[in-house]
Amino acid sequence: MSTKIKLGILGGGGDSLIGILHRVASTMYDQYELVGGVFNPELSESIAFAEKIGIRTDRIYKDLDALIKAESALPREERMQVVSILTPNFLHFPMAKLLLENGYNIICEKPLTTTLEEARILETLLEKSKTVFAVTYTYTGYPMIRQMREMISNGAIGKVQKIDVQYYQGWINPIIHDAEKRANTWRLNPEKSGISCCVGDIGTHAFDMIEYVSGLEIKEVLADLNYLYKDNVMDIDGTILLRFSEFVKGVIRTSQIATGEENNFTVSIYGEKAGLKWEQENPNYLYLLQEGEPLRVLKPGHSYNSELSLDGTKLPPGHPEGIFDSMGNIYKGVARAIKKEKYHPAEFPTMKDGIRGVNFIEKAVASHQQGNVWVKIDE
Amino acid sequence: MSTKIKLGILGGGGDSLIGILHRVASTMYDQYELVGGVFNPELSESIAFAEKIGIRTDRIYKDLDALIKAESALPREERMQVVSILTPNFLHFPMAKLLLENGYNIICEKPLTTTLEEARILETLLEKSKTVFAVTYTYTGYPMIRQMREMISNGAIGKVQKIDVQYYQGWINPIIHDAEKRANTWRLNPEKSGISCCVGDIGTHAFDMIEYVSGLEIKEVLADLNYLYKDNVMDIDGTILLRFSEFVKGVIRTSQIATGEENNFTVSIYGEKAGLKWEQENPNYLYLLQEGEPLRVLKPGHSYNSELSLDGTKLPPGHPEGIFDSMGNIYKGVARAIKKEKYHPAEFPTMKDGIRGVNFIEKAVASHQQGNVWVKIDE
Amino acid sequence: MSTKIKLGILGGGGDSLIGILHRVASTMYDQYELVGGVFNPELSESIAFAEKIGIRTDRIYKDLDALIKAESALPREERMQVVSILTPNFLHFPMAKLLLENGYNIICEKPLTTTLEEARILETLLEKSKTVFAVTYTYTGYPMIRQMREMISNGAIGKVQKIDVQYYQGWINPIIHDAEKRANTWRLNPEKSGISCCVGDIGTHAFDMIEYVSGLEIKEVLADLNYLYKDNVMDIDGTILLRFSEFVKGVIRTSQIATGEENNFTVSIYGEKAGLKWEQENPNYLYLLQEGEPLRVLKPGHSYNSELSLDGTKLPPGHPEGIFDSMGNIYKGVARAIKKEKYHPAEFPTMKDGIRGVNFIEKAVASHQQGNVWVKIDE
Amino acid sequence: MSTKIKLGILGGGGDSLIGILHRVASTMYDQYELVGGVFNPELSESIAFAEKIGIRTDRIYKDLDALIKAESALPREERMQVVSILTPNFLHFPMAKLLLENGYNIICEKPLTTTLEEARILETLLEKSKTVFAVTYTYTGYPMIRQMREMISNGAIGKVQKIDVQYYQGWINPIIHDAEKRANTWRLNPEKSGISCCVGDIGTHAFDMIEYVSGLEIKEVLADLNYLYKDNVMDIDGTILLRFSEFVKGVIRTSQIATGEENNFTVSIYGEKAGLKWEQENPNYLYLLQEGEPLRVLKPGHSYNSELSLDGTKLPPGHPEGIFDSMGNIYKGVARAIKKEKYHPAEFPTMKDGIRGVNFIEKAVASHQQGNVWVKIDE
Repeated sequence: MSTKIKLGILGGGGDSLIGILHRVASTMYDQYELVGGVFNPELSESIAFAEKIGIRTDRIYKDLDALIKAESALPREERMQVVSILTPNFLHFPMAKLLLENGYNIICEKPLTTTLEEARILETLLEKSKTVFAVTYTYTGYPMIRQMREMISNGAIGKVQKIDVQYYQGWINPIIHDAEKRANTWRLNPEKSGISCCVGDIGTHAFDMIEYVSGLEIKEVLADLNYLYKDNVMDIDGTILLRFSEFVKGVIRTSQIATGEENNFTVSIYGEKAGLKWEQENPNYLYLLQEGEPLRVLKPGHSYNSELSLDGTKLPPGHPEGIFDSMGNIYKGVARAIKKEKYHPAEFPTMKDGIRGVNFIEKAVASHQQGNVWVKIDE
Repeated sequence: MSTKIKLGILGGGGDSLIGILHRVASTMYDQYELVGGVFNPELSESIAFAEKIGIRTDRIYKDLDALIKAESALPREERMQVVSILTPNFLHFPMAKLLLENGYNIICEKPLTTTLEEARILETLLEKSKTVFAVTYTYTGYPMIRQMREMISNGAIGKVQKIDVQYYQGWINPIIHDAEKRANTWRLNPEKSGISCCVGDIGTHAFDMIEYVSGLEIKEVLADLNYLYKDNVMDIDGTILLRFSEFVKGVIRTSQIATGEENNFTVSIYGEKAGLKWEQENPNYLYLLQEGEPLRVLKPGHSYNSELSLDGTKLPPGHPEGIFDSMGNIYKGVARAIKKEKYHPAEFPTMKDGIRGVNFIEKAVASHQQGNVWVKIDE
Repeated sequence: MSTKIKLGILGGGGDSLIGILHRVASTMYDQYELVGGVFNPELSESIAFAEKIGIRTDRIYKDLDALIKAESALPREERMQVVSILTPNFLHFPMAKLLLENGYNIICEKPLTTTLEEARILETLLEKSKTVFAVTYTYTGYPMIRQMREMISNGAIGKVQKIDVQYYQGWINPIIHDAEKRANTWRLNPEKSGISCCVGDIGTHAFDMIEYVSGLEIKEVLADLNYLYKDNVMDIDGTILLRFSEFVKGVIRTSQIATGEENNFTVSIYGEKAGLKWEQENPNYLYLLQEGEPLRVLKPGHSYNSELSLDGTKLPPGHPEGIFDSMGNIYKGVARAIKKEKYHPAEFPTMKDGIRGVNFIEKAVASHQQGNVWVKIDE
Repeated sequence: MSTKIKLGILGGGGDSLIGILHRVASTMYDQYELVGGVFNPELSESIAFAEKIGIRTDRIYKDLDALIKAESALPREERMQVVSILTPNFLHFPMAKLLLENGYNIICEKPLTTTLEEARILETLLEKSKTVFAVTYTYTGYPMIRQMREMISNGAIGKVQKIDVQYYQGWINPIIHDAEKRANTWRLNPEKSGISCCVGDIGTHAFDMIEYVSGLEIKEVLADLNYLYKDNVMDIDGTILLRFSEFVKGVIRTSQIATGEENNFTVSIYGEKAGLKWEQENPNYLYLLQEGEPLRVLKPGHSYNSELSLDGTKLPPGHPEGIFDSMGNIYKGVARAIKKEKYHPAEFPTMKDGIRGVNFIEKAVASHQQGNVWVKIDE
């Protein structure tokens, strides 16, 4: 019998792209076997989807309650060991809550919840359940991001003095300029998406990334968001000033109206000794800038990289890996945690990252609404 | 019970990189389930490897004979439906031969065989077995290579007039300059590697790629190979002039002593109307050059791409996919062929590509040995 | 006798880089002849410099008063027709004032003056003198910047909705972290440099560039500057939020502590229909981003470019021109204005640009000092 | 009176691009003053051109004979000190001959002559005249090419083992496919252009560049040229195999039918220890590739560059210089030679480079015509 970790998935059925991302990621290191879940709200669709992806249908459930009831009744060695939550944002909280209350390990898509209050409740539940909880800030799994983190942590650029992160997309452009379309997109409906569109969807990636690679905490934010039309109540663009301390500053620039941009997420960190830059669309290059020295371009798989980085590369240099591989690395880290093997704390984002990400969204929106003033990110 | 295609693998155990590549590729579209195989020459190691990758050990065999005997005895619906051959080159032929004789579908690593004669024998066997036979010239699975092929086929660049393909690596450099190391590397031992090192390993990729994207056949070659040392009998570098017809010419440049290069495989095709360029290390960019027009840069996943290209992209633009995804596309095509679904003939390289690739290796070496003269590639 | 425009230069002697830039620029289109000036505060040094650069020494003067007295006494056809001011910033005002009062055409380095008040005085004088007055925001002379301007003006990207301009350097890094060095650099001494270091030196370029290419006016700014040390009174980094109108926003990011950056000035303008991007360090590429279309990369010298752009390119495509050529284009435009030939208003920045640039510096610093609040740029 | 070197120019009138290139280059370091010449075959046009570029017309001559007669009659300190030959190729020889016989310093465009025999005659004359003779292989003046040369010379990449140079253009494409156009272009008329179009115009740049940067001599060539149509007698594309010694090989790839390419001249040199790569269209980047080390990207103006490289950069890093600056560096070197100041032998290409360049053209064409065989380049 397979000794792989038994994985259940909530959501991710139909044509879901996030579903493909998680399924592929889960297989990359031969660690997981997808055994069932709730892929769609309709049971019949869930079963059809299971058939489509070639898995058995006996562990496809009509809802999470049914899943927990049935799975928890199974002998421990057969039971789902971890459940991935890929549903729309507002369902993250109730699902994670139920799973934590029943002692499951969880892999949850970002943002963790739609309010900070909900996030705090999950935090408390996790302290009790003591299970593994990962939040899939996917981009932190890239080998060169891991390398960036390790280099900064090891002092390669000296004390950080300036951070500039951009996350520009243009996809909402054809929607936002059409009054009817913008009135009928769930992304621009706060009841479905929470209080923010742009900051909530991609700004939170930028926030998490900064704290991940720099090891610093963002203390205060001053946001200027753009809604583009009076009848639109959700931000679709924003520039957010950051304070790490009195003399360490930064900026998050995030947009869904940067026309023609695809997924242009870039990270630039400048320290007293050097700078490091990275671009998500060309993720296998890490740029090290030093005053008076040739630019150095680091690539994955070379022995000059840190252990954490090398652990995230499967093939020799020159064989480009991509975003599936990045998510695959996060799944690998979670597998180690589940198996109680040794792992590096930076292998996957945790509950703490999830909470801070939600916290950031709330504070950025508050700053804007209060007239572009500084607002503190709570501890 | 899983409805996935039952896959067996020969080779690919231990730390094999090609093993990882094929395993991940096989899972990407939820089409295959790895059920067993012969991962290592030693049965115990094969079993240990099966345990490591979390699959059942009851279909791990001591050798291919045992595999065929046992599998062929199983009911058709349980039997391995396709076997991937990832063993060292000289084993491709006997293994593929045996599998064809027993009616199996095959996915075989390149080069198909070590001699053209062997390749011809496989061709004959395949005509009888009428099974699916793919040769994994991996790079043809990239979405932008597929797009290049379709654009050329649809006349986007007009009549092709010039082709320039480069495949530069530098990995053999630390070996070739050390007399002891170069005497003891299997890659430089013709008994183990066949008659060519550089042309056989990477030149053949260049050859196949040219015929794949251009739809043209290379008729003649004139090769100047480099061995670098008198005591080295295997080429580690070569420039090969190509003739497609009297006025359509090209060049393959291939090297393992291009110091510091990783896997720098580039394809440039110039037609009467336009040119197309692509680089393997940044595979998600396709450059369209037209006289007097801005350079156009095509990227995967956009609706301006061909169906064949779009079929090979899983996520929206800006989410970089890589070499695993390229091989995954080949596996997807093979799955369709096995399931007798409709598929595009360009979804995976076939026996014909495999034979021509071996043919090319022999003729390039012959051209060099005969004093850099033109040698015809047989039909 | 040469029919070239007679040019005098103030400053630019010794090892001055700005001197080289202006001298070379002045010769590029066979329009100017450098006849004399005041290159250094010391007359003997000025004369030595004239000899070094191979020009006659009889029109080298001990100071601007002497220059004006002697030149104005010459017959009109021999007199200096235009004077370039390349001295330290605080001298721009008195020199430009004197020259305007005596009816000279002027090419003045940026920033125009160290206070807005001074700038207003020059404006009034220019209204009387009716001479030609250019402010050398050098980067506006690049052919692809001119192309960007024309495309935006012609509606190629639709209504502008977002602007993001970066000007990052790292040169002050080795100075700022050394208490003694930072106390003794004239750049960080407000008496010598005016009220701002970073915004005044490079932020002003960003500001001018935005208004140049977009045709929009920046109405309000909110700046967060960084001084890095308590004992440093001059900004060396800043992020400045911009408002063009209620729903058109932008950001200027400017730094001299972006360690390892050289002169990384980038311009991104997003409209409802498309985006345009440009990078100063690779100035011969203009990127046009359109939703669902391949990226287009425009290059200089092609007939698809506007007249204004083509006028700024001397050689065929593929022959890279650079920053000297950019400044050369500004000088060419000024020559046309002096000769009363037809010219495009965008050929060189004017007094108005100079005034707005100074205005911006004052308002950005004010915004920061008042606690990061919105401050209006006066008309 | 100006102490600049008095420069005369032959050719370069009208809309001549090469004329602009040389005029601007001559002014860049304040070393030359253009005093006259023969810009056009018609004296009246020459005079009109002189007026257009704003120089005196009293030293504009009807032909070279008149120029020599008049100039040689002037007192030495007033006489033209150097003459630049920018006329069509077939005039290089008679003009250079006459100038050498009369003891002038010469700057001659490439190719030096249209036959090797003529080149040898000039060589003999130069031995007698002992004047300065430069051949403007312009691209050798780029700072990063100079840096490449110095690094290779200093052992930075170890013993050179492989060289690959590309010079691809697409400009002849619209001409070559039109029977009438190709019959009536002077470039494709051997009487006007010599024996080769593509190799003669750009292949010779590649040849010179290789010997310049590597310090090696190309001993033998094997060329496969393409004429594309039976009625066309001039090569417009060619791949040329190179032998430096038994085990050091290379390739020159050159084309004018690489559709859409502008001036894509690239240089790759691989040694036992490292590789160096450079691209003319982005000339301010030099790539150093070392096995197991991050890629290093060197840029002009940094103190890590050699003296020879730094001497060719006028502004600080990040201020892009281009092809005018490259030619300007050659002119600067010639100025030093004329003034008998100390200079580095690599500051400008000489008679020897010119002769070898012509030699190469003849041998490449011979190799092709003889059936793609090896032909020796004479000493």
